[in-house]
Amino acid sequence: MSVSVSNLKVAILGFGTVGSSVARILCDLKPQGIELTHIYNRNVARKRAEWVPSPVHWTEDFETILASDVNVVLELVGGLDPAGTWVRRALEAGKSVVTANKKLIAFHGIELEKLARSKGAHLLYGAAVAGGIPVIPGLQQGLAGDQVTRIEGILNGTCNFILSKMEEGAEFADVLREAQGHGYAEADPTEDVDGYDARAKLVILSRLALRADIDPEQISCRSIREVSAIDFEYARELGCTIRQIARAELRGGDVLASVGPMLVSKASPLAWSRGTENTVLVGGRYGGDVVFSGHGAGGHPTAVAVVSDVIGIAHGSRAVDLPSRKTAIGGEFLLRHSIRFVVSDQPGIIAEIALALAEQGINIHAIFQKPGYGKSNLPFVVTVEPCAVSTLQRALARIGKMTCLLEKQFDLQILEPEEDRISH
Amino acid sequence: MSVSVSNLKVAILGFGTVGSSVARILCDLKPQGIELTHIYNRNVARKRAEWVPSPVHWTEDFETILASDVNVVLELVGGLDPAGTWVRRALEAGKSVVTANKKLIAFHGIELEKLARSKGAHLLYGAAVAGGIPVIPGLQQGLAGDQVTRIEGILNGTCNFILSKMEEGAEFADVLREAQGHGYAEADPTEDVDGYDARAKLVILSRLALRADIDPEQISCRSIREVSAIDFEYARELGCTIRQIARAELRGGDVLASVGPMLVSKASPLAWSRGTENTVLVGGRYGGDVVFSGHGAGGHPTAVAVVSDVIGIAHGSRAVDLPSRKTAIGGEFLLRHSIRFVVSDQPGIIAEIALALAEQGINIHAIFQKPGYGKSNLPFVVTVEPCAVSTLQRALARIGKMTCLLEKQFDLQILEPEEDRISH
Repeated sequence: MSVSVSNLKVAILGFGTVGSSVARILCDLKPQGIELTHIYNRNVARKRAEWVPSPVHWTEDFETILASDVNVVLELVGGLDPAGTWVRRALEAGKSVVTANKKLIAFHGIELEKLARSKGAHLLYGAAVAGGIPVIPGLQQGLAGDQVTRIEGILNGTCNFILSKMEEGAEFADVLREAQGHGYAEADPTEDVDGYDARAKLVILSRLALRADIDPEQISCRSIREVSAIDFEYARELGCTIRQIARAELRGGDVLASVGPMLVSKASPLAWSRGTENTVLVGGRYGGDVVFSGHGAGGHPTAVAVVSDVIGIAHGSRAVDLPSRKTAIGGEFLLRHSIRFVVSDQPGIIAEIALALAEQGINIHAIFQKPGYGKSNLPFVVTVEPCAVSTLQRALARIGKMTCLLEKQFDLQILEPEEDRISH
Repeated sequence: MSVSVSNLKVAILGFGTVGSSVARILCDLKPQGIELTHIYNRNVARKRAEWVPSPVHWTEDFETILASDVNVVLELVGGLDPAGTWVRRALEAGKSVVTANKKLIAFHGIELEKLARSKGAHLLYGAAVAGGIPVIPGLQQGLAGDQVTRIEGILNGTCNFILSKMEEGAEFADVLREAQGHGYAEADPTEDVDGYDARAKLVILSRLALRADIDPEQISCRSIREVSAIDFEYARELGCTIRQIARAELRGGDVLASVGPMLVSKASPLAWSRGTENTVLVGGRYGGDVVFSGHGAGGHPTAVAVVSDVIGIAHGSRAVDLPSRKTAIGGEFLLRHSIRFVVSDQPGIIAEIALALAEQGINIHAIFQKPGYGKSNLPFVVTVEPCAVSTLQRALARIGKMTCLLEKQFDLQILEPEEDRISH
């Protein structure tokens, strides 16, 4: 008996960077049993590519695809609408769907999976998180036998590009412009730099790894816009760099979760991603930490995940569908923090800061001041022992009123290695 | 419609470190649809564990399991025999098999997979390579849509423990004893330190990633026994460390493959594994490099992979079975090498070495000599530009006859970052 492979007719919705990479791989590798039959795009005439074989039907009408004998729809349009409507209608018509749409899966994944199951169709989204890195199959297949208790990831390539360039000395605004020039950042970079993209991905990973359905809008997101080059200088003093970290952890019956810039030890695998790379660390009760790393974005790596999902369907593979349950975001991480001040120096500044922290029960861990700055514009950093963000914010509200501050203080959470964390 | 999960009766063959960890996870997590019914071990009486629920049937007779209504046999005995016979008989009886046995899968995997398919049974071996790190599901599911062209891995935890301890200054023999004390190394460490364990795993990864069936015995293995502490000192001068690297690469219609100690840049993810950790780098034509890292050995991590495979079967997941083809090991890697000499110093040594290398067309790249050694017992290192191992060996055969050598010279291959490699 040889391996049985179904013959699948496949339609691509959206012929942008990822869609054209998917078509390219399907045309180059010709995976067994997979036939590209339709490509949908708005104003399709200007998209038509010579290298796509002529039997492929180009259309700007989704209904054509819905009415066709296509078995699998590849939704590579992105966003909640009309993508969501199309995915829903394709599933209702009994077609399987492969999507790279993290937002749709984060907000409506559970409902869409239910719909797919009720129709005997597949809904696969291996490309929705960390593109070419097989984190989702890794969680569904290879780590299903563990009890995963925490996830920490660099899930947004744009932020990683920006922060790893800033690590070399550049300022945020300049690197953002450079990233926009490369096509790594959108004209409006909000989704990326303010954390909403990583948040959607974190919600998907929490569902698969922690088996917890969490509400994306309950996860606190903090922008990387306020990070400046001087923060990297102080990070170095602490043996750290700065990365946008998306993290979620089971704590009792709840989940703690956040997205934002953090100080990360250079000894951590999360400090090693360069450029647009992604890294995901999954911590399990039995298997310990597993790290996945690679190209999390870009046309070709994302297309690999899409094509892999289609091949899975052709080969009769079925995702292990692990039950998750509605879970609240509860409580806060207790963390060390590093607070950067820029002051016009005068006696009593440290005393006043120390007092404001002490009032909230926060202990100072260390004070750093790099040489080479004058008294009139003096940056320095205070690190504090583990406390909740809200507790720190109360102290900072008082500290922020100090007249010696030349700009608002900026605090960064410190991601400690697992073994150094305090339990609470 | 809810998710359909089959009810599976499961037997564990071999109640050693991995077998007892598997039982522990099954008892703790009680995955839906999976019931542990039998445990086999030789002299089972001394193995019986109180914490295993009483309906589980303990036996020292494999025939009992074969005759039972067990659906899935977990083969955790290891080795080619009797494990191979039992796996074959279980499959012939229509039972599915999950195994952690890399040797069996490397040598007989294709034949056993054929047998499993012909019986409608599953044969899964996610635990056979890199234990708790989901490399095999990653390749079968998440990277099936790429064309993987190379694999580089740290696949043996024992060697990694030894070499990462030697990096801190210890000598091989002392660390081996320590590893044996921890249970990280066998009394006879041959399989690990001489490369045969990593070779079996490399054969499995080549089949899944490169789609190439290669004969394990054609892969050149080199022991790490000859590496000494001084080699780490010179490695540091080159910005490198030393690791046992298993690598395979498609070249034309053939595969190049080797296992042995190599100099690895500290900037490479392959240099980051500490202790018994494993790391696997998979290089794809479309998706670029993906890195997997974590605990590659040990009872619990390996058990996670075994339990994950059983859960996959219960959930009706089917491994994507990608066709591979018989492929020859052809040709040699062209690599830079570093050669360490220990001499009684006298004029003309470098000239003689340079001449012997030049006769084989090998260019010297650099010569390093660390201070602090006397002329009567002087170590130094010569690095050479890329050449084949066999070419270097011809030069070294002549150099080895030099009377000034106090011990046999020792050469290490240098694993260059992909972008610096020469094409040939």
